[in-house]
Amino acid sequence: MPPHRRIDVVLDSVRRLLRIGATANLLNLLQKQRPADLAQVFAELHDTERKAAFSLLLERNARLAMEALSELEAEISAGLLSDRSAEDIARFLHEIPSDDAAVIIERLPEELSTAVLALIQAKPGGGVGDLFEYEEQTAGRIMNPNVFALSEDLTAGEAITALQTARDVEMVFYLYVVDARRHLVGVVSLRRLLLVAPETPLKRIMTTDLISARVDTDQEEVARQVASYNILAIPVVDEEAKLVGVITVDDVIDVIKDEATEDIYRLAGVSGDERVATPAGESLRKRFPWLVINLATAFLAAAVVGMFQGAISQWVALAVFMPIVAGMGGNAATQTLTVVVRGLALGELTWSNARQALFKEIVVGVSNGVGTGLIAAGVAWATIGDPSIGVLLALAMTINLFVAGTAGTLIPLGLRAMKIDPALASTVFITTLTDVFGFFSFLGLGALFLRFMHQGG
Amino acid sequence: MPPHRRIDVVLDSVRRLLRIGATANLLNLLQKQRPADLAQVFAELHDTERKAAFSLLLERNARLAMEALSELEAEISAGLLSDRSAEDIARFLHEIPSDDAAVIIERLPEELSTAVLALIQAKPGGGVGDLFEYEEQTAGRIMNPNVFALSEDLTAGEAITALQTARDVEMVFYLYVVDARRHLVGVVSLRRLLLVAPETPLKRIMTTDLISARVDTDQEEVARQVASYNILAIPVVDEEAKLVGVITVDDVIDVIKDEATEDIYRLAGVSGDERVATPAGESLRKRFPWLVINLATAFLAAAVVGMFQGAISQWVALAVFMPIVAGMGGNAATQTLTVVVRGLALGELTWSNARQALFKEIVVGVSNGVGTGLIAAGVAWATIGDPSIGVLLALAMTINLFVAGTAGTLIPLGLRAMKIDPALASTVFITTLTDVFGFFSFLGLGALFLRFMHQGG
Repeated sequence: MPPHRRIDVVLDSVRRLLRIGATANLLNLLQKQRPADLAQVFAELHDTERKAAFSLLLERNARLAMEALSELEAEISAGLLSDRSAEDIARFLHEIPSDDAAVIIERLPEELSTAVLALIQAKPGGGVGDLFEYEEQTAGRIMNPNVFALSEDLTAGEAITALQTARDVEMVFYLYVVDARRHLVGVVSLRRLLLVAPETPLKRIMTTDLISARVDTDQEEVARQVASYNILAIPVVDEEAKLVGVITVDDVIDVIKDEATEDIYRLAGVSGDERVATPAGESLRKRFPWLVINLATAFLAAAVVGMFQGAISQWVALAVFMPIVAGMGGNAATQTLTVVVRGLALGELTWSNARQALFKEIVVGVSNGVGTGLIAAGVAWATIGDPSIGVLLALAMTINLFVAGTAGTLIPLGLRAMKIDPALASTVFITTLTDVFGFFSFLGLGALFLRFMHQGG
Repeated sequence: MPPHRRIDVVLDSVRRLLRIGATANLLNLLQKQRPADLAQVFAELHDTERKAAFSLLLERNARLAMEALSELEAEISAGLLSDRSAEDIARFLHEIPSDDAAVIIERLPEELSTAVLALIQAKPGGGVGDLFEYEEQTAGRIMNPNVFALSEDLTAGEAITALQTARDVEMVFYLYVVDARRHLVGVVSLRRLLLVAPETPLKRIMTTDLISARVDTDQEEVARQVASYNILAIPVVDEEAKLVGVITVDDVIDVIKDEATEDIYRLAGVSGDERVATPAGESLRKRFPWLVINLATAFLAAAVVGMFQGAISQWVALAVFMPIVAGMGGNAATQTLTVVVRGLALGELTWSNARQALFKEIVVGVSNGVGTGLIAAGVAWATIGDPSIGVLLALAMTINLFVAGTAGTLIPLGLRAMKIDPALASTVFITTLTDVFGFFSFLGLGALFLRFMHQGG
């Protein structure tokens, strides 16, 4: 994988220096890396190497070590801190921005995270502690409370001076303007400040039509706003419209990635927070319930087959071809489901165009059913020399792909209407439906055909 | 859907004003909207309403109309321009940034897009035309060629003056510094410029250790860099390290969303550029080939069942329970596959931790197989009163979920090694494998059991 090549060189050096115990050189090398690169190195080291390298860096350059930690996967970062005392962790967390600190605290084992939080909240004005007053996955939890705000009574010149003397405001691109009671009233861009005469009042040059999020806005909605309005940061206000924080676009990117992962996972029946590095026991605990639900639905499908045991024992070819009907229904339904679920997630599918989408999916489903059904009929006829099973296959596949298109659209829409995440439960409903309908239509038609032949013959 | 409520009000007004022909009021309302909101309104209008409203706005405020267009889905935006002349389109495209213009050109019907491009490239220094010298999905194609660069010989004061007089550089946050031959040599933040004395040379305050992309870098890699280094823009250089453009974080967000959609879609056998609004005929054309491939693999699985027709006709219960074994294998494989494919996409799974991941998936697979197999055995015994089919179920499910875990890890890794997108082909391989192994293990064990019983009895 070429993009990682530079990292691989660093990785090899880190391993070698660890092995020979060249601490000074190792520290030197680590301190030259960017946080994201360090995170990548830590991720690829083995457990003992990682602990050794991280501890070393933490003692010398706690800020860099913690920054790297905030970029690491949850599992790994929790592991690196879990044998430290709550006091140490609280001290280290002071080195990094509150929103990153909040992420790390969330990932700690529960007891430790409570202890760290208690320590941090005990100190007055500790920004991180405040974030925990808000629900997970809301704007309040992911915002940075250290937002740079200017009074509406300042002039452009005074604003520039304020900016020059401000500390710890690394990524300022919008300057938010507040009134005497800290209500958010406007925004000025840094570039605009440079373009006007120093004595111009901020009030005159600020934009008052601005986009903001409330502390209780869902993070997915925040991400959608930042993405669709192409803004670099969104101010966060409380219930009284007072400015309490800011969410920058780099955090929004993390939200977008996490939400996409969650959607992909939910469609496959995997818990949103599972990663490659999740220990086997935990993965097992997370995946097993989903498989048990699927097992229950599989028995439902088996029960349908069971209804037609008589037909199957008379005509074994039915058993040979029945998985094709069910499987193709499942595949077609998955296609429809995926387009519909993603359309809902991206906001492209709404109530006003839902009927049109349903109609389209029915057309596509029936057409695909007829097309693949005819191919299947031809193959079946050619291989077993009996045209009748082919006719049954074509009919059953058309019926089942009609069901797939209809249900693949209606089920996620219905779940959304009931305020259930459509990605979460759609797959299991859909595959059950296409299995049951697939077996029922094919074996049912088969049984009818047998009866007809019997009467006819 | 509450977040759309404000849009719904606008939407209703637009419809009403269109109906009564209140052109002036309608224009007024449209011009008050942000491009992203307009795009949402256009998306939800019916075809004729949309054409009418868009034409109206295009005549009066081409810039806003085109900005909204660039935010629309590909299908819809192509439809709105397809009956315009190439000359008109080329003229309208001049109103918006080159990277947005490039996106719109790509979406036009092929003939029209060629004509528009020819017109644009005929004009000297037309930024959009240059982008088409680079491959699709590379940094060169998605960059904005109007990048603001400063000579390394300037002072901070001169740089600020240059910035004040520059036009059309709406989103400047990093100032790139170039040498006399336009090689990228450094970067200065706007804030840093304000903090130093005006006579300070840029050379002294610029950062020379900067992240850049080459014109031929894949857009996914660009997105990964911007996301992992938390930067707001990345400069793009050509083969000679000369600065030729910049990619801002808002475009990176679009790339991240598109790539996530592509991954979700590929796992389900849907083409990456299909959307809810794609016409039925085109969706059919895109989905049918995938279903035909799946049909071929379904026949493979049917052939395995065909090998055991003798056993099935002796013991019909085998046909009743065989879909359970195959289906559970497919479900477990999908879980593994999803975690592995997403891990590869996010860069969390690499060669160095692949063995560990494989081992974990095998453990999880076998454990899930034993667990669900025992439940299935119990249910089968309880319902049909015959313990032997339960024992076969438990054994076959354990084997098949072992296969699911192993193949779910190795197949995407193997595809990646062969430089094939693991999301693209994994699903079809995996489900074939779990179907074939599921039927083979269950029916094979069944046939063995029958022979043993026969000998025993």
